[in-house]
Amino acid sequence: VIRALVFDVFGTLVDWRTSVAVEVAATFGARGVVVDGLALADAWRAEYQPAMERIRSGGRGYVPLDDLHRENLERVLAAFGLSLQAPEVDGLARAWERLTPWPDVPEGLRAARGRALVAPCSNGSIGMMARLARHAGLSWDGILGADLARDYKPKPVVYLAACAALRLPPAEVMMVAAHNGDLAAARAAGLATGFIPRPLEHGPSQTSDLSPEADWDVVAEDLPRLARGIPGP
Amino acid sequence: VIRALVFDVFGTLVDWRTSVAVEVAATFGARGVVVDGLALADAWRAEYQPAMERIRSGGRGYVPLDDLHRENLERVLAAFGLSLQAPEVDGLARAWERLTPWPDVPEGLRAARGRALVAPCSNGSIGMMARLARHAGLSWDGILGADLARDYKPKPVVYLAACAALRLPPAEVMMVAAHNGDLAAARAAGLATGFIPRPLEHGPSQTSDLSPEADWDVVAEDLPRLARGIPGP
Repeated sequence: VIRALVFDVFGTLVDWRTSVAVEVAATFGARGVVVDGLALADAWRAEYQPAMERIRSGGRGYVPLDDLHRENLERVLAAFGLSLQAPEVDGLARAWERLTPWPDVPEGLRAARGRALVAPCSNGSIGMMARLARHAGLSWDGILGADLARDYKPKPVVYLAACAALRLPPAEVMMVAAHNGDLAAARAAGLATGFIPRPLEHGPSQTSDLSPEADWDVVAEDLPRLARGIPGP
Repeated sequence: VIRALVFDVFGTLVDWRTSVAVEVAATFGARGVVVDGLALADAWRAEYQPAMERIRSGGRGYVPLDDLHRENLERVLAAFGLSLQAPEVDGLARAWERLTPWPDVPEGLRAARGRALVAPCSNGSIGMMARLARHAGLSWDGILGADLARDYKPKPVVYLAACAALRLPPAEVMMVAAHNGDLAAARAAGLATGFIPRPLEHGPSQTSDLSPEADWDVVAEDLPRLARGIPGP
């Protein structure tokens, strides 16, 4: 029996790419500067895994994603030959607290809450997830993920710390994600797995994670269908 | 400006004593045994601080409160000359997930949510708090407290870990409690403080925490009034 659903957030529940691009374009538009927001969003996101990898590998102590986002943004702005005042960088760095959910998510999370405890198991910090949930109209039973484990997915400790905090055996917790790699790591840690595709996460030319790459426990085309596939309490 | 309210739970938001007494009486009543539920609840609660103190003092590694509650229950049952089967002990030990909120709490928390982020900062575990919130109809932005800090209030790390997880300076976070000692520790860690009295927490002959013992930042007679005393966002 599944007693909790824990969710990847960036890409699985919210459309980070379009949301960040809009914020970038607005920030520079206000100064009369035209910037390709999608290109900057992609470049910013490309810094995400390397920044976390330094921490996962032990080369740097745990630093919340908020700080990594800001550091990465400064690097990307420099690479694009762009500059902003510090308060504008601060504001733009927090664009990740103002992302738009995919259209099926509010209904899907409500359905999921009727069947199990629900919590993000994201690499975002607790504060980032709390403010994003307020912005996006999401309701959680708690916030799990990187801050609790003080390390980053896909390291097993992140999934295991989430289960331990809920006081549930991993087999009673399902990781829900649009990313096969996240689910492979969750399965290796003993969790159940649920996949929904997000074929537009990286834009119309996306080539990764278009379909399930293993026999995940539940595969559904959207979150409400996935939630209805979970046995009720 | 206050951007988050973090709450003590046992005693401040929920009436643990009456709730536990009812569960005790029901558990033994089902076996035809009459037990003074209030006396057993008080004895069980009396084991709470000593069990945490071993961990706070470093004599034992962090153990979630769920496990302490179960150990303490076994000790108290033995002291009362009572015995139960292991599954009944398991069920009764989880009475702390099924406590009744004080009558003003649902409305008060809704009002608080309109003004700030809200989260428990309790010595209960994340799982315990999540299930208690479902039972009691409470809605949180996240769950902070002992599990996050892997130590117990009133140690400063618990308050500071809560602020760090929210990415807020302590001065922008208010600890709300019915216990002067909790607020004194929170203030020493730099948090703002809000007091509401719960004169029946320990029953009609309660002598402690009947009134504020310092100039807490907000003092109100109940949670809705306290929430309305917080400047809006």
